[in-house]
Amino acid sequence: MSVRYLTAKLAQQIDEELMNAAGAFSLDQLMELAGLACAQTLAKVYHKEKYSRVLVCCGPGNQGGDGLVAARHLGMFGYKPVIYMPKPGSKDIYKRLQVQCTNMEIPTLEPSMSLDSLRDALSSSDIILDAIFGFSFKGPVRAPFDSAFPLLTSSKLPIVSVDIPSGWDVEKGNAAGIGLEPDVLISLTAPKEGVKEFRGRHFLGGRFVPKIMEKKFQLNLPEYPGFNQITELPPLDSSQKL
Amino acid sequence: MSVRYLTAKLAQQIDEELMNAAGAFSLDQLMELAGLACAQTLAKVYHKEKYSRVLVCCGPGNQGGDGLVAARHLGMFGYKPVIYMPKPGSKDIYKRLQVQCTNMEIPTLEPSMSLDSLRDALSSSDIILDAIFGFSFKGPVRAPFDSAFPLLTSSKLPIVSVDIPSGWDVEKGNAAGIGLEPDVLISLTAPKEGVKEFRGRHFLGGRFVPKIMEKKFQLNLPEYPGFNQITELPPLDSSQKL
Repeated sequence: MSVRYLTAKLAQQIDEELMNAAGAFSLDQLMELAGLACAQTLAKVYHKEKYSRVLVCCGPGNQGGDGLVAARHLGMFGYKPVIYMPKPGSKDIYKRLQVQCTNMEIPTLEPSMSLDSLRDALSSSDIILDAIFGFSFKGPVRAPFDSAFPLLTSSKLPIVSVDIPSGWDVEKGNAAGIGLEPDVLISLTAPKEGVKEFRGRHFLGGRFVPKIMEKKFQLNLPEYPGFNQITELPPLDSSQKL
Repeated sequence: MSVRYLTAKLAQQIDEELMNAAGAFSLDQLMELAGLACAQTLAKVYHKEKYSRVLVCCGPGNQGGDGLVAARHLGMFGYKPVIYMPKPGSKDIYKRLQVQCTNMEIPTLEPSMSLDSLRDALSSSDIILDAIFGFSFKGPVRAPFDSAFPLLTSSKLPIVSVDIPSGWDVEKGNAAGIGLEPDVLISLTAPKEGVKEFRGRHFLGGRFVPKIMEKKFQLNLPEYPGFNQITELPPLDSSQKL
């Protein structure tokens, strides 16, 4: 049995059930484990000796929160992250996560910065962590991300995307061609339908799905090795590739 | 510079600063990372092929919360934990953590169980995770733990203790001789003065101390390897041993 790829609706439902009275998780818990998995994936593929300067790009929603957690852990691992969060989310948790980053001496770029400043930031980065849009993204890509995306792409820096590459449709992938094209993807909880054809290295994190929920939704999650928080999914067979 | 061993007062102060407005961490976050580190330490030393049946002993305070988080992660790792929590804490977070364990099909022993039942539980366990008392413990050991301790000890099962072995004084260690004698210790945040002479394998977890706080309190924390959440402290020199 291979892993189940989630529709947008199912991803939403699982997210809700994890945090309702039956699932009993707090957002803080899930975000901590998700962000840790993101940081560990980046660190597993891109070593800090060569890729220390990480531009952590955060959107205004929970995906951005995962990015802030990842930035902090990357700081712990010895990377030099810088946060690009032009539309800071309003939830209290994002503010707390940002304070935690500040306490790790991780700078945040001025939200109202110009595109030139973003270009400068990219030219002093080795890699991008894309935590801009997640599985609740509905296009189109709005300002300032509509102008930022082409800069991120043209930087030619490697991109690690969180859960669903930013700009992709959760089910149709990058059919519209407006999304980022990451080298590495870290799916959270379970992969989404839209990344079924993703050709880069693909990891899974969010090792918190309770057994009863895994059974209920027939997720067929892969084994995680030992006590790791991430596991790499097998590459697509060439026969499956387009 | 070697790692700083904390007094009870300093441990308390650091704990408070992590969670006040300046530190900005929630208890959920810290407990998640602490509990994960505890589970990973046990899994690193005691492989599930031989030590799958873990009796996770939880006290009524935050230490017990760490134990519940550890139990859940151990379940994720493929162990078969059972929770012994005869004095369930009243905080909402403990209730949520326990629901999360139930959803992982981890049983909790009846809190009012007899000592005979505890003896039975021990005889069907391979190892003990001791998350009973933490750094705010002030003796004496009260019921039902006063009767439970001798059973845990006489079981001869290996014991992994969280932060400070239960019954030990945070600064004076097991001078009074009433505490458990673990084989493995996982200190959290930074080790406490009372475990300076601990002779078993000693790990450190809680990789969340922000740089500004590490400097302020001159903790001289050891390096963690790569993106690991635990690090093993070097064994005591024979010259340092009693």
